[in-house]
Amino acid sequence: MESNLNHIFELQYALDTFYFLICGALVMWMAAGFSMLEAGLVRAKNTTEILTKNVALFAVACTMYLIVGYDIMYGGGLFLSGITTVAEMDDAAVASVIAASTESGFGEMGEYSGASDFFFQVVFVATAMSIVSGAVAERMKLWAFLAFAVVMCGFIYPMQGSWTWNGDAVFGLYELSYSDYAGSGIVHMAGAAAALAGVLLLGARKGKYGSKGQINAIPGANLPLATLGTFILWMGWFGFNGGSTLKLGGIGVANEVANVFLNTNAAAAGGLIGALIVARIMFGKADLTMALNGALAGLVAITAEPADPSPLLATIIGAIGGIIVVFSIVTLDKLRIDDPVGAISVHGVVGIWGIFAVLLSDADATFMGQLVGMLTIFVWVFVASLIVWGILKAVMGIRVSEEEEYEGVDLSECGMEAYPEFVSSK
Amino acid sequence: MESNLNHIFELQYALDTFYFLICGALVMWMAAGFSMLEAGLVRAKNTTEILTKNVALFAVACTMYLIVGYDIMYGGGLFLSGITTVAEMDDAAVASVIAASTESGFGEMGEYSGASDFFFQVVFVATAMSIVSGAVAERMKLWAFLAFAVVMCGFIYPMQGSWTWNGDAVFGLYELSYSDYAGSGIVHMAGAAAALAGVLLLGARKGKYGSKGQINAIPGANLPLATLGTFILWMGWFGFNGGSTLKLGGIGVANEVANVFLNTNAAAAGGLIGALIVARIMFGKADLTMALNGALAGLVAITAEPADPSPLLATIIGAIGGIIVVFSIVTLDKLRIDDPVGAISVHGVVGIWGIFAVLLSDADATFMGQLVGMLTIFVWVFVASLIVWGILKAVMGIRVSEEEEYEGVDLSECGMEAYPEFVSSK
Amino acid sequence: MESNLNHIFELQYALDTFYFLICGALVMWMAAGFSMLEAGLVRAKNTTEILTKNVALFAVACTMYLIVGYDIMYGGGLFLSGITTVAEMDDAAVASVIAASTESGFGEMGEYSGASDFFFQVVFVATAMSIVSGAVAERMKLWAFLAFAVVMCGFIYPMQGSWTWNGDAVFGLYELSYSDYAGSGIVHMAGAAAALAGVLLLGARKGKYGSKGQINAIPGANLPLATLGTFILWMGWFGFNGGSTLKLGGIGVANEVANVFLNTNAAAAGGLIGALIVARIMFGKADLTMALNGALAGLVAITAEPADPSPLLATIIGAIGGIIVVFSIVTLDKLRIDDPVGAISVHGVVGIWGIFAVLLSDADATFMGQLVGMLTIFVWVFVASLIVWGILKAVMGIRVSEEEEYEGVDLSECGMEAYPEFVSSK
Repeated sequence: MESNLNHIFELQYALDTFYFLICGALVMWMAAGFSMLEAGLVRAKNTTEILTKNVALFAVACTMYLIVGYDIMYGGGLFLSGITTVAEMDDAAVASVIAASTESGFGEMGEYSGASDFFFQVVFVATAMSIVSGAVAERMKLWAFLAFAVVMCGFIYPMQGSWTWNGDAVFGLYELSYSDYAGSGIVHMAGAAAALAGVLLLGARKGKYGSKGQINAIPGANLPLATLGTFILWMGWFGFNGGSTLKLGGIGVANEVANVFLNTNAAAAGGLIGALIVARIMFGKADLTMALNGALAGLVAITAEPADPSPLLATIIGAIGGIIVVFSIVTLDKLRIDDPVGAISVHGVVGIWGIFAVLLSDADATFMGQLVGMLTIFVWVFVASLIVWGILKAVMGIRVSEEEEYEGVDLSECGMEAYPEFVSSK
Repeated sequence: MESNLNHIFELQYALDTFYFLICGALVMWMAAGFSMLEAGLVRAKNTTEILTKNVALFAVACTMYLIVGYDIMYGGGLFLSGITTVAEMDDAAVASVIAASTESGFGEMGEYSGASDFFFQVVFVATAMSIVSGAVAERMKLWAFLAFAVVMCGFIYPMQGSWTWNGDAVFGLYELSYSDYAGSGIVHMAGAAAALAGVLLLGARKGKYGSKGQINAIPGANLPLATLGTFILWMGWFGFNGGSTLKLGGIGVANEVANVFLNTNAAAAGGLIGALIVARIMFGKADLTMALNGALAGLVAITAEPADPSPLLATIIGAIGGIIVVFSIVTLDKLRIDDPVGAISVHGVVGIWGIFAVLLSDADATFMGQLVGMLTIFVWVFVASLIVWGILKAVMGIRVSEEEEYEGVDLSECGMEAYPEFVSSK
Repeated sequence: MESNLNHIFELQYALDTFYFLICGALVMWMAAGFSMLEAGLVRAKNTTEILTKNVALFAVACTMYLIVGYDIMYGGGLFLSGITTVAEMDDAAVASVIAASTESGFGEMGEYSGASDFFFQVVFVATAMSIVSGAVAERMKLWAFLAFAVVMCGFIYPMQGSWTWNGDAVFGLYELSYSDYAGSGIVHMAGAAAALAGVLLLGARKGKYGSKGQINAIPGANLPLATLGTFILWMGWFGFNGGSTLKLGGIGVANEVANVFLNTNAAAAGGLIGALIVARIMFGKADLTMALNGALAGLVAITAEPADPSPLLATIIGAIGGIIVVFSIVTLDKLRIDDPVGAISVHGVVGIWGIFAVLLSDADATFMGQLVGMLTIFVWVFVASLIVWGILKAVMGIRVSEEEEYEGVDLSECGMEAYPEFVSSK
């Protein structure tokens, strides 16, 4: 009898670990989504550079989170202790399973490999950082950006992650009562806050805003890429939200995971339709880039609570996100905050909507709890980022020269064009 | 002892739910495949519009199936009841697992989350609708297309789905004896029938067929995209066919699932080789677009029965599909049925081959059963679609103006070019 | 009691089969990655042809391995016996599970569907063959290439696979003591050895090397595609390395799988950073193609032992791979070995590094064992490939005419351009 229970625990452990790893692989795949989305929405002459930023930031995020980030967020505070922690967690997990198997109790089951937890967490950091690259595209120096990525992934993101998902007191002062299932605020708004700080110090692209107040559209060079990127993000989001249940084995939690998949998809669909219709009314056309941003907005909106809403409510939460994003993009342009891909609107403004949409279905969440959590994350990330961007600006400069911007950053930063054979009409 | 059995049932439930969700995510990914395939096979000036149609139809499909479609296909017939049904199914599943666990019986196991079932079904509808967009590309009005998508996904598809996969009597008249594992007919031929009705009312693209009977090739603008789309569909098809076992937990069904994966891959490989060789013989070249359509034809051909054939038989069934698709594309062009991406041939003509290929390995299927099922689906979808397209044509028009077609629908429908910087040689 | 144990074994079997199938689907996805990577790194005029080669080689690999390859590698040596073997393995697995369930013993568990094993193995062959297509790009005849693929996938690869993963004696002479978890040598260096043989017989592209010793850069036409391909390969590699544990169910093996995922990701990140920094130092720019090859080099380097190293060691192993690949690409160019995508460096030179990096974490592996294994694989594949390429050269020719090369092989081999509307600046 004990032996059987032990077998069951082993299978449970394997299933939950497998689930975590598959979700992590899907979130890693989101890095490809951000790359394609951003590469499609910038001009041809800046495409190699944005691709380089995206692949490099993913590598930097993985390495910095391994060296210090995971430890700051979940560990004991020592340099590199996160790495050993993973192995220790595995040993602890095995011990706890053996202990549990002699006591029984299904509710106590659900341990999984520490390495699978780390793998899932590490790809989240890269997501937050990917948000930044789009907003500062076409004018920021590549190496300044990567220097910021080192600090963001190793320190700024993990600090607020420790206050929220790990429940640490904020600077030892107060504990948050904040509900954010998969990170509308902790990942998406945090990334947007860092991006906003960078954009404010960086300024708009040359030619974006005219001297007489006009706003010039700068169309993206490759819309199939942008569409592909959106689909990749949509697919990866199943792992992003789904894996945030942290386990799968058991009827209750399996039902929760299924709701998360269903609602994530429904919210993206709602967001796309909402943005498509609003853009049709406002601009008279079926605006593809707004539709894509609408789908992403729906996904961001449902991320803070994808398990509890009914599928119809999830569709509506997503649709509202899709509507918000159109107005936000228009408004930011009026404020001359130049965000080439709309990342601040999608992840920041709609991220805030997602944080408060939790109140529609989660009876335990409170308005004040969400508000204080949101403000804590935003102020921390924005101010810390502003300081780091400011130091980088003073030390090495964060903006390319006017001539480099005119010629395109591909040649100056990377030494190669993205489409060397396709004659440009510029 | 009972307690152990309960634990085992919980794990079984979680594993089957997880399996369904992963397969659903793979089928969702097929929407990206259709988008890239179609965007690669149309001309540059119509690319933004086909992308917009593809992302929007997916969102419409998800939303309409949630509101009415699932209910018509599997539920009690009430508006929106499908949504609550999902939650009720979860409760029912839990109850049935608890009941089962006190009785035992592994054969009775295999419940899974109702939400996971819904998620898997909803992405199937989008697949059927994606087939339509390719066939009517480069000349159909965007909003007319989306209006059709509303009716197709909310009503036409679910009706025939209720007769087949749910086993309802056709209009209360007769019950089908029809075997179609993952939907060569129910999904693929159904989509192609709706597409054919649209193409017949819409007419050919300007310049496709000359006044003296000549057929002009209109090459696609971006073959790497088309290739990527094919690979995405190939990968997503593992979920499409694999998930159609509906469960995984148990030796017999796990073996069945493994056969499905193996045969799906083998048939795609066979179809590609078959089409490549036939095209080489007929045209003297290694025709990439025929090879891609051959792979898809192999996939469509095996979809009605991917579990029973040996891998060698699956390769042959796929190869015959690949050969058929080349002749079908050539024949449709002679009939002046203009299908820019070959969707009617791949999904319709080869879908019919798939329906009858079931007889090669499934001893329970009969020729008459397959024939009556095929005719029922085809006549229903074709006639219903013809009526809806006809109404749309009368009310709002389904074809863009000659000038819009010449200039490309991207600017008139979406207000933006897909590749604004790449000079066109047209 | 026995009945419960039986249920547990059934779940275990289902979970392990599922795991294998998902990993196989991820490896199949790598075929899309190679296609996009190679299509992005060749010139526009040779893009359709490299796409055709990639899709066709995958189909050829699947079919040839089904007909003879699997049998040579794991079976009894009879033509087509591999196919029936799969079904027999399923029967044997069921019997062994039933037998085990009456004895108990968790350690003896872990059977899975024979079809799932075949599916996983078949996609590995395609990976090895995909490596070749990139190295011989832009000048090799398409049908000669596919003829080579038939022999490589049906015979050359399976022979060395039987000596290593199946443990057969090499030509009946000696048994290898060689450790190669997922195939740094057996898959990657083997593919590179076949590629090197082809490149030596084929010669460099026209214009690559000047008469006065200068080396001319021939930039790839589409870097977003190359980046996408790298991300696809990165994601697919989780299945490539992860599935090589061969099973999942159980705490120990689940922890191992999680380590593999974590280390695979860490090595790719390390490789990217290593190559990016070295290229920055050597060329003064953030070289995107070197960064992409660095990530792939990191992945190849960790493939021979992804389970044992700590994540930090995995990062370092990957980083060394990334540094090696930059020097290797530069060196091969000096030797006038023309490899348009860097495949011989990434998979061959770094594959050798991976084989010996096993010694850093696996106490059972020996330097001599790794050396003899490496030499056996390399000599066999290189010599056998040289003979096959030589016969093909004599019989049908392997190189396109000078005029075809100048015009681009797309029109001569495939009869269609990849980007017919985008004016080329060549």
